[in-house]
Amino acid sequence: MVSGPSNGLVGRGAPADVRRGLRSSSLWAVSREGVTPQSEDFSAWYNDVVLQSLLVDRGPVRGTMVIRPYGYRIWELIQADLDAKIKEAGHENACFPMFIPESYLKREAEHVEGFSPELAVVTHAGGKQLEEPLVVRPTSETVIGEYMAKWIDSHRDLPLLLNQWANVVRWEMRPRMFLRTTEFLWQEGHTAHVDEDDAMRETLWALDAYEKVSRELAAMPVVPGEKTPGERFAGAVRTYTIEGMMRDGRALQAGTSHYLGTNFAKAFEIDYQDENGELTLAHTTSWGMSTRMIGGVIMTHGDDKGLVLPPRLAPYQVVIVPLGRKEQAETTTAKAHELAAELKAAGVRVHVDDKRPQLSPGFKFNDWEMRGVPVRLELGMRDIDGGVVTLARRLPTVEGQGKEQIPLGEVAARVPAILEDFQAFLLRRAEEFREAHTAAVDTWDAFTEQVAGGWALALHCGQTSCEDEIKAETAATPRCIPAAGEAAEGACVKCGTPSAYGKRVIFSKSY
Amino acid sequence: MVSGPSNGLVGRGAPADVRRGLRSSSLWAVSREGVTPQSEDFSAWYNDVVLQSLLVDRGPVRGTMVIRPYGYRIWELIQADLDAKIKEAGHENACFPMFIPESYLKREAEHVEGFSPELAVVTHAGGKQLEEPLVVRPTSETVIGEYMAKWIDSHRDLPLLLNQWANVVRWEMRPRMFLRTTEFLWQEGHTAHVDEDDAMRETLWALDAYEKVSRELAAMPVVPGEKTPGERFAGAVRTYTIEGMMRDGRALQAGTSHYLGTNFAKAFEIDYQDENGELTLAHTTSWGMSTRMIGGVIMTHGDDKGLVLPPRLAPYQVVIVPLGRKEQAETTTAKAHELAAELKAAGVRVHVDDKRPQLSPGFKFNDWEMRGVPVRLELGMRDIDGGVVTLARRLPTVEGQGKEQIPLGEVAARVPAILEDFQAFLLRRAEEFREAHTAAVDTWDAFTEQVAGGWALALHCGQTSCEDEIKAETAATPRCIPAAGEAAEGACVKCGTPSAYGKRVIFSKSY
Repeated sequence: MVSGPSNGLVGRGAPADVRRGLRSSSLWAVSREGVTPQSEDFSAWYNDVVLQSLLVDRGPVRGTMVIRPYGYRIWELIQADLDAKIKEAGHENACFPMFIPESYLKREAEHVEGFSPELAVVTHAGGKQLEEPLVVRPTSETVIGEYMAKWIDSHRDLPLLLNQWANVVRWEMRPRMFLRTTEFLWQEGHTAHVDEDDAMRETLWALDAYEKVSRELAAMPVVPGEKTPGERFAGAVRTYTIEGMMRDGRALQAGTSHYLGTNFAKAFEIDYQDENGELTLAHTTSWGMSTRMIGGVIMTHGDDKGLVLPPRLAPYQVVIVPLGRKEQAETTTAKAHELAAELKAAGVRVHVDDKRPQLSPGFKFNDWEMRGVPVRLELGMRDIDGGVVTLARRLPTVEGQGKEQIPLGEVAARVPAILEDFQAFLLRRAEEFREAHTAAVDTWDAFTEQVAGGWALALHCGQTSCEDEIKAETAATPRCIPAAGEAAEGACVKCGTPSAYGKRVIFSKSY
Repeated sequence: MVSGPSNGLVGRGAPADVRRGLRSSSLWAVSREGVTPQSEDFSAWYNDVVLQSLLVDRGPVRGTMVIRPYGYRIWELIQADLDAKIKEAGHENACFPMFIPESYLKREAEHVEGFSPELAVVTHAGGKQLEEPLVVRPTSETVIGEYMAKWIDSHRDLPLLLNQWANVVRWEMRPRMFLRTTEFLWQEGHTAHVDEDDAMRETLWALDAYEKVSRELAAMPVVPGEKTPGERFAGAVRTYTIEGMMRDGRALQAGTSHYLGTNFAKAFEIDYQDENGELTLAHTTSWGMSTRMIGGVIMTHGDDKGLVLPPRLAPYQVVIVPLGRKEQAETTTAKAHELAAELKAAGVRVHVDDKRPQLSPGFKFNDWEMRGVPVRLELGMRDIDGGVVTLARRLPTVEGQGKEQIPLGEVAARVPAILEDFQAFLLRRAEEFREAHTAAVDTWDAFTEQVAGGWALALHCGQTSCEDEIKAETAATPRCIPAAGEAAEGACVKCGTPSAYGKRVIFSKSY
């Protein structure tokens, strides 16, 4: 069995083409310059991981990204689950144009004010200057509002439950892969209802769907809650969010759901004849989850070795690395494909790493760890002779648990449960991490200390000006008023005036 | 049982809110001003059908469209099938940025010349003028070429098999819903290979996949073949196409696959070290199928009553219309939902039309015929008492075959086969139509007469200038050199010089 140096990299003595392979950025032969440790520079760690694990590449224009197959597959897995939830609840997918007349955006005053600084504008097309500039959608409330007005006449047309999977553009000053890119992918739900009750039910349905996707697929124990007025979506009456804690203690907003009241209905004349024949304004909602979610997965679970992917979102849940050279490699590779077929039949996404003979086993092991594959199976001649395969989890789910050997005949039966355990372990670990880095605080000193590396639960007066002061001093913002928060009253942690929300607010630095 | 006038429209004596319902453009209550007959004005028929069947609405900007849920579902069904084929053959989905630096397009001379007139350009973003204008992708060879160059080093990195599902923008002078819209949805495959042989295998694989989707899903008996040099994609060495015949005798190009040779590899430096360590140019391909396909389905199968959808692409394969009023309606609606549950369990996409009590049964029957639903089940008290349901196909698959009654207990068992028969019938009918409207011609008079209402199989000299003359005189263009065409030689039907392709070329007016 060939075994590389302990860091798994092929040494300086390797043939030129092998070293060349290691330097390349090609699809499978990874460049391993090493990942910056999280503790040293979390932001550099993040960039190293997203690029070296081949999730993305930098786009040709500042702030854009190329989502590579390994990253896009994660998005497809999120899409499949969320799309099924959306359809099951009666929504229908549609596709609205990406170019929106500038005049549409101006109809809702808060909305245009919020989005104006981030717009990309098409001024020329077909070789001519356009009469009216076209905005590339930053979100689609305005264009969809126009059609809701056209399609809705009667209470019988409500609720109107639409969704679209689309790309949107927001010109970002401080772009970060997945988290803030000028173009990103998302779904945006847009619905119209007879009244506030029905629209609020919808708003909270979407929030619940997002929480389920986060917890069940991404193993992210997000906290659902309402945004404070200062953090609302531009044009919304109420904004709800799910907030996840990243491993540097910051919060990530992973999905939002907005009750828009009649703001857009007024701006676009979305009205209907009610059962008594009265013309009545509809109440609308909108809600979105985006490729930003992938950034959340990376920062919730990743470590100094690289990515850690929850099995339900892993493009490869299991990678089999056949070991040995020449005839031995033929035998182990053939056996690896047999195992792969059994695992595939058991519903497992599996990959056999047999196309890179120039790389050492140690390199491959490190490579798949860096790319976050939950379970690795190592298959050498000695394993086959002993009727076993060596199984290594990306992280030990039990203290001190290292590699273990599994009888070849039991692999397909046992791996699905091992993956489920790993999924559950990641959620539990993230929950424990969040709890360990969250504290209720009642003094300003305790507040500043807590938000330096975690979440502070604090009473707040509800004034946006006070939020602004907190942000200026600590970079922390109110992330949400947690839905499940216990009742609490008292003085604002910052200004001392009476608290506003009947419970503590989560404050944190955020992405 | 309530029964409307023979045309199914509610009469003038109907209550105001019912008439209002009929005039509305809301999601389910269709505006039925009637469809222009195909024979009178095929183009007007097409517009009537796409709008009245609720597939699309006109977009806010000239040349754009809103794909409504009923139309988008058809696209999702095409996507699901084609995406599975693409993945099965080893391709991986990715997502490249929509904004392409103008300079990228200029690197391949023919490519930029071909697309320049159709480009939409972003000149301002984030409140500032951009240093370099950004083109909204008309197709992605250039941006993907840039990354292929970056990702490919060695022969081990090849083939590189990428695909993306995306929106693209081509500013159209003569827009038509689905067929030519300024923004449309498509998939674009982009692959790189070690040599011409491998790249040509890929090019023809994609063509074959498109033919299968067309025949098997869309019941469109398309003809695969190669484009003449004058009709090639801008930058391609060879362009292949599938051409379908529409019911006005014109051709529709429903998918194309291009062997790009080393044209883009040269422009973007897509090279690799071969097994001997030599730096070698890769050979690339690209191929695409778009929402235009939906236009092809409409014009292949539709008739004066409206849409006719092949079951495999029908959002609703079966619609059940419960009949009767009050208590009777309760009974028939309950039974309809029972039947729907049985059909759903049998894998049938089924809808119960029970939310429009204000509309007459006749109106509903016509409405679902106009919307192209393959099978309608009418369920009245008399049917239930007799233990049957009345089944009506959108078109009689056997001459003179009208409605038939099916025992309630046999519906779920028999409907899947009825749908399969209907699917096969549509393909057969379209094949017969194409054969009846295709003829080999050897004189110019016969040519002009044939292309007035169908396809002409003619010998051609292969000169682009001669193609241009034919187009100027008859509006017909060479659609393809059919792959399965018989060997033939002789004089060009237009200029009399010797023919070029060793077989006849299909000429036709086209979309």
